Amino acid sequence: MTANSKTLKVALLGAGNVGSQVARILLDDADALAARTGARLELVGIAVRNVDAPREVELPRELFTTDASALVRGADIVIELMGGLEPARTLILEAIEHGAAVVTGNKALLAVDGPTLYEKADAAGVQLSFEAAVAGAIPILRPINDSLAGDKITRIMGIVNGTTNYILDAMDSTGAQFADALADATRLGYAEADPTADIEGHDAAAKGAILASLAFHTRFALEDVDCQGITEVTAADIAAAKDAGYVIKLLAIAEKLEAANSDGAITSGVSVRVHPTLIPREHPLGAVRGAFNAVFVEAESAGELMFYGRGAGGSPTASAVMGDVVSAARRMVLGGPGRTESTIEVLPVLPIEAVTTQYYIGIDAADQPGVLAKISALFAQNGVSIETMRQTVHSEGNGHDGPGSAELRIVTHRASEAALAATVEAIKGLDIINSVTSVLRVEGV
Amino acid sequence: MTANSKTLKVALLGAGNVGSQVARILLDDADALAARTGARLELVGIAVRNVDAPREVELPRELFTTDASALVRGADIVIELMGGLEPARTLILEAIEHGAAVVTGNKALLAVDGPTLYEKADAAGVQLSFEAAVAGAIPILRPINDSLAGDKITRIMGIVNGTTNYILDAMDSTGAQFADALADATRLGYAEADPTADIEGHDAAAKGAILASLAFHTRFALEDVDCQGITEVTAADIAAAKDAGYVIKLLAIAEKLEAANSDGAITSGVSVRVHPTLIPREHPLGAVRGAFNAVFVEAESAGELMFYGRGAGGSPTASAVMGDVVSAARRMVLGGPGRTESTIEVLPVLPIEAVTTQYYIGIDAADQPGVLAKISALFAQNGVSIETMRQTVHSEGNGHDGPGSAELRIVTHRASEAALAATVEAIKGLDIINSVTSVLRVEGV
Repeated sequence: MTANSKTLKVALLGAGNVGSQVARILLDDADALAARTGARLELVGIAVRNVDAPREVELPRELFTTDASALVRGADIVIELMGGLEPARTLILEAIEHGAAVVTGNKALLAVDGPTLYEKADAAGVQLSFEAAVAGAIPILRPINDSLAGDKITRIMGIVNGTTNYILDAMDSTGAQFADALADATRLGYAEADPTADIEGHDAAAKGAILASLAFHTRFALEDVDCQGITEVTAADIAAAKDAGYVIKLLAIAEKLEAANSDGAITSGVSVRVHPTLIPREHPLGAVRGAFNAVFVEAESAGELMFYGRGAGGSPTASAVMGDVVSAARRMVLGGPGRTESTIEVLPVLPIEAVTTQYYIGIDAADQPGVLAKISALFAQNGVSIETMRQTVHSEGNGHDGPGSAELRIVTHRASEAALAATVEAIKGLDIINSVTSVLRVEGV
Repeated sequence: MTANSKTLKVALLGAGNVGSQVARILLDDADALAARTGARLELVGIAVRNVDAPREVELPRELFTTDASALVRGADIVIELMGGLEPARTLILEAIEHGAAVVTGNKALLAVDGPTLYEKADAAGVQLSFEAAVAGAIPILRPINDSLAGDKITRIMGIVNGTTNYILDAMDSTGAQFADALADATRLGYAEADPTADIEGHDAAAKGAILASLAFHTRFALEDVDCQGITEVTAADIAAAKDAGYVIKLLAIAEKLEAANSDGAITSGVSVRVHPTLIPREHPLGAVRGAFNAVFVEAESAGELMFYGRGAGGSPTASAVMGDVVSAARRMVLGGPGRTESTIEVLPVLPIEAVTTQYYIGIDAADQPGVLAKISALFAQNGVSIETMRQTVHSEGNGHDGPGSAELRIVTHRASEAALAATVEAIKGLDIINSVTSVLRVEGV
């Protein structure tokens, strides 16, 4: 291999946590990268807002510039790690126009403007890669795009937000309430000062849109994702789930479904959603602890697959970025088409009402004869079938509400959200009910 | 996309469990495959030994032929799923000579003759793909080759044999002895009539050689793998491991090490080995149950990654084969270089003596004052440091050997095999020792 016959100019936009690690790899591992790509990858500049800002990684000062646009115009490969919508979008479009391959980890931008960017890259015949945008270091986009290209994916369930997994895992191990677990996560650096995007599920939703687009060869945007965060998950929910053999995870789920439209005609479509979900503790996703991420894929022939690793952090994310950079460089050296997003089908987005899942319902009821019968009847009337029902009776004076209360934990068979909601409303109307303590979806059974 | 502008002739060699599923996908999903590749994939024939043999999947009789060689000569893509060394090797070489892309799942052939085949394919400029040869449906070769191309892998640990994982998992859940668990596995179809290649670790060793070759850009063959099977793992080992928070798995391990050679100079090299291993129950590999496979990868920047899925079976393996077929077809349609094995470094194979791991040692000793002191002294004399030592004293008459026996379970810090062996020999020489009941390696702590 003539490793040094060619030089490719690499422009880096952003020198934060990930960007500085990417710069370090490009500088420190230049020889190994040349051997793997057949070209020297020359880091020609790093665009930042403030050249003099303190950096975690020491990098040659002469590489820094504030003129991102000039840097982009002179590059063969542009690595965008600034985050945010602007100026990232404008700079990526400039890079595409100039024929540079683009590697980005900007999930926010892709979730909003992905379709436009993919089209521009397609039209210009340049490669737009974004492995780092979903599940950090975990190679997931390439396996979905290439390895499963001869198979049909039916469902993807991902733990794609490390902050929420850290919080839920801590609640599960220590019995802590959400607010306390969040405070700990913030103190330890697992949650940002403003954790909204994580705990409300927005970050997971952006990644869910990207995963769904790849898995189902259709373009989904953030607004197509039905999203519910973890702020309402209580210690009692976690304890009840644990007791029943489940663990609660925030999952981004994309699945192919058939649904009847208003005329009764059956349509194939895709539901993309994010919500706290009970999964069996022995499910592979149940073993994903702390801030780790994992993506569980179900495909027609392959069956169940799971991809596990670090979802965030400078070095892990830099690894994913560099995989894309090496891949882009190899293609520039050896020729061949850019790797672009494959949109072949156009599947409609189905609303969450079209989804059927199993449900877990916790009910605090009076301990009276006939309670089970009355509740069972309401499930039956609404067409929701019960898989398991467990009753724990609390005797008087143990601190629970009122004398003789009973705690019911019901797992249903698959039911629609509408049928479940009607059932829950009806149960709430019973005078023997103190409260419906939780309603959560169950997957992976 | 002009999906039907081109036709690629596909020859299938073998119509067993995997081959018949591949044929089914090629025939049933022809339109979807055309959309994904830009070419119609025409199955032009299936070479078998006996055209009239009964098949699990019904396939058009006119596709079958016994003339594999003629079939290969007329094909653009050759899928070899016959298994065994010959005639598979000759037919693959014929295909390469004729410029056809080759997809194979033949781990035995690759483990023996991989280096020759890779070189011939390189020289001819054709693509030789083998995702199905390791860990069945799990996309592992592409993530290692492409996604981690900008990172440095330091270690791979794989559960790559479903039969042995099924047996060990059954022993762990039921307390069964090896022979009984094997008999069950055979009855249920998880073990073959002659299970030697699985239970002696040979199958895992072949996969370990392929994984090591990819991870460390160096060609390893089966003979480079130090291999120990699971036939000597006892129910007592499993129970003791469980009690101490571990689970025993058969792991194929490839890791980069530095070792001093006879002159005292330090050499970088790779150890590739297969042996029963204790891993912590909460380790991601510990959650791999039944006949599932998983490959755990440690890389410098990415940190810990794991790839999980079905390691065998017709449909799952067919999924991996079809991923390679689609990839080969895309390249034929769109142009570009073949995906070939990347051998860049030449790292020496290090013998197992160069490896240091933690060890688990079970000792059945007399319950006398000073036993712990004597045993501890022997560890210290041999330079092996003890991490944890647990003692369980059995009172008289409980069926254990002799009055007042003590069971010691010791986990060491990292030690060389030589130091550990010397320690164990010395312990066996103590008159207060009834027996050393187990010596097993520990990883993932």
